[in-house]
Amino acid sequence: MANQPDKNTMIIGRHPVLDAIKGGTEIDRLVIQRGITREYERELKELSRQHQIPLQVIPKERMDRYTRKNHQGVIGFIALIKYYKVEDVLPMVYEQSETPLLLLLDGVTDVRNFGAIARSAELCGVHALIIPDKGAAQINEVALKTSAGALTKIPVCREVSMAKTIDFLKMSGIQIYASSLNAKNPIHQLDFTGPAALVIGSEGNGVSPKILSMVDEHFIIPQKGTTDSFNVSVATGICLYEVMRQRSM
Amino acid sequence: MANQPDKNTMIIGRHPVLDAIKGGTEIDRLVIQRGITREYERELKELSRQHQIPLQVIPKERMDRYTRKNHQGVIGFIALIKYYKVEDVLPMVYEQSETPLLLLLDGVTDVRNFGAIARSAELCGVHALIIPDKGAAQINEVALKTSAGALTKIPVCREVSMAKTIDFLKMSGIQIYASSLNAKNPIHQLDFTGPAALVIGSEGNGVSPKILSMVDEHFIIPQKGTTDSFNVSVATGICLYEVMRQRSM
Repeated sequence: MANQPDKNTMIIGRHPVLDAIKGGTEIDRLVIQRGITREYERELKELSRQHQIPLQVIPKERMDRYTRKNHQGVIGFIALIKYYKVEDVLPMVYEQSETPLLLLLDGVTDVRNFGAIARSAELCGVHALIIPDKGAAQINEVALKTSAGALTKIPVCREVSMAKTIDFLKMSGIQIYASSLNAKNPIHQLDFTGPAALVIGSEGNGVSPKILSMVDEHFIIPQKGTTDSFNVSVATGICLYEVMRQRSM
Repeated sequence: MANQPDKNTMIIGRHPVLDAIKGGTEIDRLVIQRGITREYERELKELSRQHQIPLQVIPKERMDRYTRKNHQGVIGFIALIKYYKVEDVLPMVYEQSETPLLLLLDGVTDVRNFGAIARSAELCGVHALIIPDKGAAQINEVALKTSAGALTKIPVCREVSMAKTIDFLKMSGIQIYASSLNAKNPIHQLDFTGPAALVIGSEGNGVSPKILSMVDEHFIIPQKGTTDSFNVSVATGICLYEVMRQRSM
């Protein structure tokens, strides 16, 4: 249920969707039906690329589950928040003479966890939340509610490639830290007082091996008990608290 | 839904419930129908007092919502975990030469938050989770699942009076710390290396004024952002991490 899109945020049909995109409505994502007229498909794909809107091609049966109306093979979902680009956010942070703190989520798909993470991030002074454009939690009404409004305050950047984003951050002088259950360094022994980005992975699989191989440091939250690991939103809250604690000392 | 009891854990009817209690089945709570024969009511109340089983008297309509079977005004819920008494747990902690760390939850009613808190508590080496017998989250299947099994590992103590429990802990040489959004001390400036108990309140109301007035120290998790406060399970995770960090240094 929590992952079901809100019907109020759907734009249904070819012309309404095309008009919305061209008119500047911020679209969260597009779904188009496999095998619709090539001409439309080409125009929509071109537009979605230009406006960096994630696009998914799905079979008719799945389209029909979204709505009983005549969707003509095209549904757009209005974004509930404005998306930013990390290239735009980072210079603003430096201009304000703040020490950047960024949070990258690699595979956190549960909307409630995502909302709670956004809430902690805003409270801990995170300057931007960075998510991939595929395989991220939907930013729907449930996510907004669980974030206690934080998602309307903290810039969310949706990036096509997390790897390229990490390259960009490294070139911008930011140290990248990833949580990993196989890491040796307990988080409180690392130094987060410089410009920093934290990468948090999914509960099931953690940060992906490719991203892990790119970052500067791996860390683990120490554990005394025998339960698997912390809930991902709790783990993220702990990490952000640790950064905040070090920076306030 | 999350607060709905599992039908598999219900014992329905007068004799089955009486037999279960007398036979030593651990009962989580009893509900009895307002206005059932006084004799039964007296016996059940007496038994529930003896065995410290929370008992609730509710109208017939609410009874009927639990089951369509002939409940005869009496339903018992089998406990999914064994409950402990803090007077029994604490001496064991001291015997093992460990520094006690206890967690008291004052008004945390959401089962998912409760489960996530139990998970963090087990991971951070909490020796017992102390909850009130009224106004606590139900320890049902959802709570167990959210705890990732931690609720079967960490002792849970259900106490009739949180105030009396705090008195007992203080007399046992334990320092009591309560989180409060009005506190001045940031948590990392307090010393948690001695025997300690943390009191965490509900998200809406925090720790109750009566309990706040009894504890040794109030603390706050520092905040940079403007969102209301951390989710209660995230906040608890941060507090327990801070204790663990201090004790591991």
